[in-house]
Amino acid sequence: MFRPRGVAVLGATGRPDSPMARPLRWLAERGFAGAVRPVNPKYDELAGLPCFPSLADVPGPVDLVLAMVPAPHAEAAVREAGAAGAAAVVVFASGFAETGPEGADLQHALVRAGRESGVRVLGPNCQGVIYPPARLFATFTAAADRPLTGTSGIAYAGQSGAVGGSVLDLAAEQGLDLTAWVSTGNQADVDVAEVGRFLVRQPEVSVLAVYLEAVQDGAAYARLAAEAAASGTALVVLRSGRSESGRRAAVSHTGAMLGDDTAFRLVSHRHGVVLVDDVDELLAAATALRGGPRPRGRRIAAVTTSGGAGILAADRCESTALELPGLAPETRAKLARVVPEFGALANPVDVTAQLFNRDDRAFGDVCSIVCADPSVDALMVLLTMVVGDQATDLAEDLAGAMAGTDVPCSVVWLAAAERTTEARATLRRAGIPVFSSIAVAARVAGALAPPATADTPLLPAGDAVPGPAHRPPRTDGWALLRRTGVPAPASAEVRRRDEVLPAARDLAGAVGTVVMKAVAPGLEHKTDAGGVRLGVPVASAAEVFDELSARVPELEGVLVQEAVPPGLELLVGVAGARDGWPPVVTVGLGGTATEVHRDVATALVPTTPDEARGLLRELRSWPLLAGHRGAPPRDVDAVVDVLVRLGAAVADRPDIEELEINPLIVGAAGDGVVAVDVLVTTRS
Amino acid sequence: MFRPRGVAVLGATGRPDSPMARPLRWLAERGFAGAVRPVNPKYDELAGLPCFPSLADVPGPVDLVLAMVPAPHAEAAVREAGAAGAAAVVVFASGFAETGPEGADLQHALVRAGRESGVRVLGPNCQGVIYPPARLFATFTAAADRPLTGTSGIAYAGQSGAVGGSVLDLAAEQGLDLTAWVSTGNQADVDVAEVGRFLVRQPEVSVLAVYLEAVQDGAAYARLAAEAAASGTALVVLRSGRSESGRRAAVSHTGAMLGDDTAFRLVSHRHGVVLVDDVDELLAAATALRGGPRPRGRRIAAVTTSGGAGILAADRCESTALELPGLAPETRAKLARVVPEFGALANPVDVTAQLFNRDDRAFGDVCSIVCADPSVDALMVLLTMVVGDQATDLAEDLAGAMAGTDVPCSVVWLAAAERTTEARATLRRAGIPVFSSIAVAARVAGALAPPATADTPLLPAGDAVPGPAHRPPRTDGWALLRRTGVPAPASAEVRRRDEVLPAARDLAGAVGTVVMKAVAPGLEHKTDAGGVRLGVPVASAAEVFDELSARVPELEGVLVQEAVPPGLELLVGVAGARDGWPPVVTVGLGGTATEVHRDVATALVPTTPDEARGLLRELRSWPLLAGHRGAPPRDVDAVVDVLVRLGAAVADRPDIEELEINPLIVGAAGDGVVAVDVLVTTRS
Repeated sequence: MFRPRGVAVLGATGRPDSPMARPLRWLAERGFAGAVRPVNPKYDELAGLPCFPSLADVPGPVDLVLAMVPAPHAEAAVREAGAAGAAAVVVFASGFAETGPEGADLQHALVRAGRESGVRVLGPNCQGVIYPPARLFATFTAAADRPLTGTSGIAYAGQSGAVGGSVLDLAAEQGLDLTAWVSTGNQADVDVAEVGRFLVRQPEVSVLAVYLEAVQDGAAYARLAAEAAASGTALVVLRSGRSESGRRAAVSHTGAMLGDDTAFRLVSHRHGVVLVDDVDELLAAATALRGGPRPRGRRIAAVTTSGGAGILAADRCESTALELPGLAPETRAKLARVVPEFGALANPVDVTAQLFNRDDRAFGDVCSIVCADPSVDALMVLLTMVVGDQATDLAEDLAGAMAGTDVPCSVVWLAAAERTTEARATLRRAGIPVFSSIAVAARVAGALAPPATADTPLLPAGDAVPGPAHRPPRTDGWALLRRTGVPAPASAEVRRRDEVLPAARDLAGAVGTVVMKAVAPGLEHKTDAGGVRLGVPVASAAEVFDELSARVPELEGVLVQEAVPPGLELLVGVAGARDGWPPVVTVGLGGTATEVHRDVATALVPTTPDEARGLLRELRSWPLLAGHRGAPPRDVDAVVDVLVRLGAAVADRPDIEELEINPLIVGAAGDGVVAVDVLVTTRS
Repeated sequence: MFRPRGVAVLGATGRPDSPMARPLRWLAERGFAGAVRPVNPKYDELAGLPCFPSLADVPGPVDLVLAMVPAPHAEAAVREAGAAGAAAVVVFASGFAETGPEGADLQHALVRAGRESGVRVLGPNCQGVIYPPARLFATFTAAADRPLTGTSGIAYAGQSGAVGGSVLDLAAEQGLDLTAWVSTGNQADVDVAEVGRFLVRQPEVSVLAVYLEAVQDGAAYARLAAEAAASGTALVVLRSGRSESGRRAAVSHTGAMLGDDTAFRLVSHRHGVVLVDDVDELLAAATALRGGPRPRGRRIAAVTTSGGAGILAADRCESTALELPGLAPETRAKLARVVPEFGALANPVDVTAQLFNRDDRAFGDVCSIVCADPSVDALMVLLTMVVGDQATDLAEDLAGAMAGTDVPCSVVWLAAAERTTEARATLRRAGIPVFSSIAVAARVAGALAPPATADTPLLPAGDAVPGPAHRPPRTDGWALLRRTGVPAPASAEVRRRDEVLPAARDLAGAVGTVVMKAVAPGLEHKTDAGGVRLGVPVASAAEVFDELSARVPELEGVLVQEAVPPGLELLVGVAGARDGWPPVVTVGLGGTATEVHRDVATALVPTTPDEARGLLRELRSWPLLAGHRGAPPRDVDAVVDVLVRLGAAVADRPDIEELEINPLIVGAAGDGVVAVDVLVTTRS
């Protein structure tokens, strides 16, 4: 697909003003080395090339076919391409799965045709391929309507051709010609992960920038991430549809359901993928990753020509969980020799505009000194009214200084772009992204740095954690806990009134009371439904049984449990593997107020004890575990043990959709934990 | 200062390349109507004008003096200006309070000189004034080094001249010449609030954009905000130093301590001030406010040429607490007649690139239809590769369509600026801000909209709420509660062992137990220090007294209280008025874990019952008050009553620095509340 010997343009248009005329024109005019074969029975010649009545008439090898035909004719085009010996077909047309069931049928037919003819399909509903190293411009995006040399080392692969067009155009404006560009559209056959795995192996690609809407195959994404890491190619991913509104919009856009965002985020972090949230951030992060160093941590220093801009940068960096460390005394001593009298040597370092009234290269020196400080992981430079020749000199000075450090740098330039054009290009060529917004610079610096430990995701806002839309079958959670070695209260499920008293007497022990819980289909939130009675004296057990029978419809039985001493209530959950994503373990503040506090942390399974302990520290409620304001520390080791074991247990049971213990009562250190309630749902 | 009859430039430089030569040159060359008088004994002529040896030698009225002299000579310059009959002096020099105690002395001398000579002082450490309506360019900022006509209606006032220079330059690049521009620097005399109050009264100013670092006088800020609202001039404020790092940076930058950020935010919201966090946001918000409509609420619709960009916008809008409502069936029906087949009629509305292959004005129609939907408060338009003539046509079409609605619009244009320059300028002239970043557009849309009710501030992160650095005297909180009518448990403070038993017997009642609390200086967190005993039987009271005596150093006495039935524990606090800011009432989840949950909401005093009720709804814990998962609703009315009364009580007591009840135990509806502990600190 990327280095075809010949390209046929099926349905090439005779209207030169149509966007669909662009691929043929660009192939014909921009030095593509292979054969270019327009196919359209209505013409003898197009774009100065002989035109053929059908694919079957085209001479010589045709590896790639560009199908410029409407959706209903695409299947036939794929079969013809196969007959002509092509390896791949690009289907540009819309009108497939993104439009509804009829379109989905057309798309299935397309996939079948590809498989039966031995042809790979890119698209449909895509904008094609650009590969400047082969002078291949098989696209109609208006963004390609400028000279493109492909020298940046940055490749783009994404579902959306429109977002891709923006990336291509903005990159070119910034002096960064993309080295490869692929829009996979509905990805009926070839998807971004497969394209990406090809691109990260190419020696001319140093950064792969990816735009994703849906990830239906988590394993394929994980493979891409792993191969990118192994090949030393940086991977930066913009994934849309991560918010609730975004998900709704995504569903109406491509007809593709989103995979699991938590697993996506965790898998990305595991392989060092940089995650961004906006188109400009994708490009800026890619710029920074072009062979430039990556930050070791989240400590950032700011060097500024304006105290005010420095304060704003400190504000924005803090809100993206970056830290502004103090500078070492030696650093400050060195700075004191360079920074003018009225500047500031703290972090931010304020060099003041007076620095530029000298002729020397003091600005680069200041930045080098700051980067040499061992507590500095990244540098953000804030420039205000440095323009014209002064700007150009500064850019060269700074680029030179940064070439000697292993600390990445970014620049926020708060002056008109038209007065700093050349300087900005100089910096970008040196792998230093240039921003017009402090907030965006801080977001990108945050994205490039290793994830913050306080990376705690919040549960979705709203009254309750959304449950599954259908009611899946329940499995016996207690038996699973027993096999896994998670402590649970002694209990007995009784179905008849006369079984209650002996069970209660057995379980009451010295406390003299038991807990009684209604068991009924769909009764996941027993407390809400009044299905739980705490502290029931043995003598009242039968009476409570009657009450529950009267109150709870479809009662199957009553669980009689020994009373558990109070402790800190946690929630522990494991979501089973799905769509190729590994299981995810969740821990958080539990009890009936868990949705109110929304304090949870997540990790991939398998989870090591160290990771599990790290999760607990991520919780806002960590002080309650560690021993808060005079309260005793809780049995953290026992919680860690539950997290590790439960994750492993669910990984072994692919039929489990979700397991949730709530509450897990955590005793004081050494006293262990008890799972007081458990719910397991399995796939139907 | 803005329309002087004559301007003297004291210490005018003879080096034309120096930045300090700019004010004289610009005054001489740009059509300033008054007299321009360079003063420097070394020259006979400067910038083609006669130069005078001293201010005393200058003929005719001199209303404004620009003091181009170093810090040590500034005081003398002010006195000379007074003697020459000037009304105001601009002091540009650095080296005053921002550098330390010596500089602060110089600054005090400057202020004294101004007061004694009847001269107002702008600065020191400032960059001066630009007022194009009077052709006054009394500044050296490089940003003024271009033709400036002052036609935008946007004025800038701020402490920082560097940030101001950026605003001026970026505005000019966007085709928006600022109508006034003032840098107040250290604002030893004239401050931003005073300048702002002048500017909002000028008929040619429709928006005032303000940059603030410190607000030492809350009342002056409130007056500016109120007068801006009364005069119909929009006010948009960028305040830096709002984060912890930012505050540290601010302290080292201007030597000015920040006022209270919560009161600042609440006062701003009360007067409809738009608060932004970045330089580009300041300018974009000002653009949107130039006579354009303001959004009625936080519901935003997106119209996009790319499904992918639409999803990203939905993500970003949601993360700034904007809501993407569904569109009404009638709206969708109207859209169906205009949007091409493969588009989407939901919100975001995806018009697809195909819309532009037609010749009609369909894009403007789509936007008009969406804006007419009653559930839409604002519109965000996302454009990808619409460039060249198509872009220009679209901009005119959209600007025309928007002129007919009362719904504000913003545009994110994800294509090279160089291919859309004219179109962007057309939109900005129509009051439609144009962004290159979806995230920034969403932030500005969020800032322009009325505040979200879920505008809950978090307490600062960390282990504990920071206490005052000094230990202020305590006042008798219980007496204050009694007078205010806030219920508290019956209690007695005992000092001797033999007083304990009678007190305990009195207070134990039917429950048979009391609560005992150590009273000692500095014992604010009694629970942490083991200074609280719950459920003490009467018979053990004397023994517990002994225990507390042994355990708590400097014990002054023991408070014996009646036991309070359990309930939901809240924290209620009131911070007293300070620096001109009104008192602020805070309510949140209380108890010992209050710092862990960090769930609080705040409002200005006086607080109405409706506002107090609104505060409770803002809490993440609101469901616990409203009746969560089967639990009974709590006595919300009683909490509202406490909030209203306590605020009023503290407003009447200017000596109170802070009052805090924790916990306030909230019973079930109708059962009232009880303040179990109270702490009051007064100013020393």
